[in-house]
Amino acid sequence: MKIYDWHTGPYPARVRIALAEKNLQSRVQFVSVDLWKGEHKKAEFLAKNYSGTLPVLELDDGTFIAECTAITEYLDALDGAPTLTGTTPREKGVIHMMSKRAELELLDAISVYFHHGTPGLGPHVEIYQNAEWGFRQRDKALRGMHYFDAILKTQPFVAGDVFSMADITVIGGLIFAGLVELAVPAECEALRAWYAKVLERPSVKNRITMSEPAEASV
Amino acid sequence: MKIYDWHTGPYPARVRIALAEKNLQSRVQFVSVDLWKGEHKKAEFLAKNYSGTLPVLELDDGTFIAECTAITEYLDALDGAPTLTGTTPREKGVIHMMSKRAELELLDAISVYFHHGTPGLGPHVEIYQNAEWGFRQRDKALRGMHYFDAILKTQPFVAGDVFSMADITVIGGLIFAGLVELAVPAECEALRAWYAKVLERPSVKNRITMSEPAEASV
Ligand SMILES: N[C@@H](CCC(=O)N[C@@H](CS)C(=O)NCC(=O)O)C(=O)O
Ligand SMILES: N[C@@H](CCC(=O)N[C@@H](CS)C(=O)NCC(=O)O)C(=O)O
Repeated sequence: MKIYDWHTGPYPARVRIALAEKNLQSRVQFVSVDLWKGEHKKAEFLAKNYSGTLPVLELDDGTFIAECTAITEYLDALDGAPTLTGTTPREKGVIHMMSKRAELELLDAISVYFHHGTPGLGPHVEIYQNAEWGFRQRDKALRGMHYFDAILKTQPFVAGDVFSMADITVIGGLIFAGLVELAVPAECEALRAWYAKVLERPSVKNRITMSEPAEASV
Repeated sequence: MKIYDWHTGPYPARVRIALAEKNLQSRVQFVSVDLWKGEHKKAEFLAKNYSGTLPVLELDDGTFIAECTAITEYLDALDGAPTLTGTTPREKGVIHMMSKRAELELLDAISVYFHHGTPGLGPHVEIYQNAEWGFRQRDKALRGMHYFDAILKTQPFVAGDVFSMADITVIGGLIFAGLVELAVPAECEALRAWYAKVLERPSVKNRITMSEPAEASV
């Protein structure tokens, strides 16, 4: 399998964490797509993912799977023993809901802020910006942090008692928050404590060293 | 089980179609949340779904599951024989990718256009609008129609050879397109032919008659 990604990207981080949680690192080869050069908006890459975003998984049969949630579903199902996406109907439903909510209310909101409310990837890549929308999304993400804080006051992980894809999505959100210098408010103590704890998981801690961009290029 | 929804909503339609595909209609009770009165933005409903959107599934144990994808995962897993979300890892991955892509490039884009580029649900509900962003999303949805047309030129259904959650999401997109009078371009012949065909499925055809809002109210 190949993963098209960029080593510091918060969405790619979600898949790198999932790979490590499933012990699949040795089965993938990383291919760097340089976001800062806009390689993800060029025709060659758009043929792999119409939406022009990273990461993308390429299977050995040539199938491309884009979208972190879809890639995580694939990876988690590979060994027939899902640990990230749930086993019972209720677990699947709650994990998918919380992961999607973490996208809507945190990660995707911060991404829109980055691309619209800041210089983003620079003027040659950000050919259209809507700053007002970007700032709105930043405020939404700050409210989202308070929401997840409230959740984590009542349970150890984002979707309940065990670590799941939903935690990974919130981690992606907080990684992105760090990049855009959107600090988690001091009063969000449960969210901060949870983040300190999950950052110690080997899958999260060792993530950044899994592949540096020099290793491969598109 | 209870479904909080609104009978003409395009997202609720996704869950109504999934329920019918899984033959689960008799196991759910519909509760109307009046979008036009903004009931989905009131505290009582926000406690059920932080994001303030319909539909929401309430399980008999009191668990709330929001987000169409999450609800579909739940419903499809109930009988242990998934038909909408895939069985092999590859099927799961491709279906989740195509369904998410149908949200990003079509359904969600049209929704943003409706809420921002048109009067939407009216001034008492749409308390903030960003028209420029709305129009951008409308244009994105039109491009999305061409993308799905190209896909459906090469295969009978959105995620491959069989009907799946991804088709339901595109159906939701085209239902919403109809509501906002965003016509599918005439040249999108494969998309139009696919739509005519899926509209004949009993799960889609009989959807609107499943529950009229008079039946129940919040
Ligand atoms: N919905 C996508 C979002 C992925 C995404 O936005 N990835 C970032 C990289 S961290 C990207 O490609 N951004 C480039 C851009 O939007 O221009 C997913 O879940 O995979
Ligand atoms: N991401 C949600 C979106 C649901 C959604 O936007 N539903 C519409 C009803 S058709 C809604 O509640 N809109 C009201 C609003 O956004 O104000 C899902 O997939 O369920």
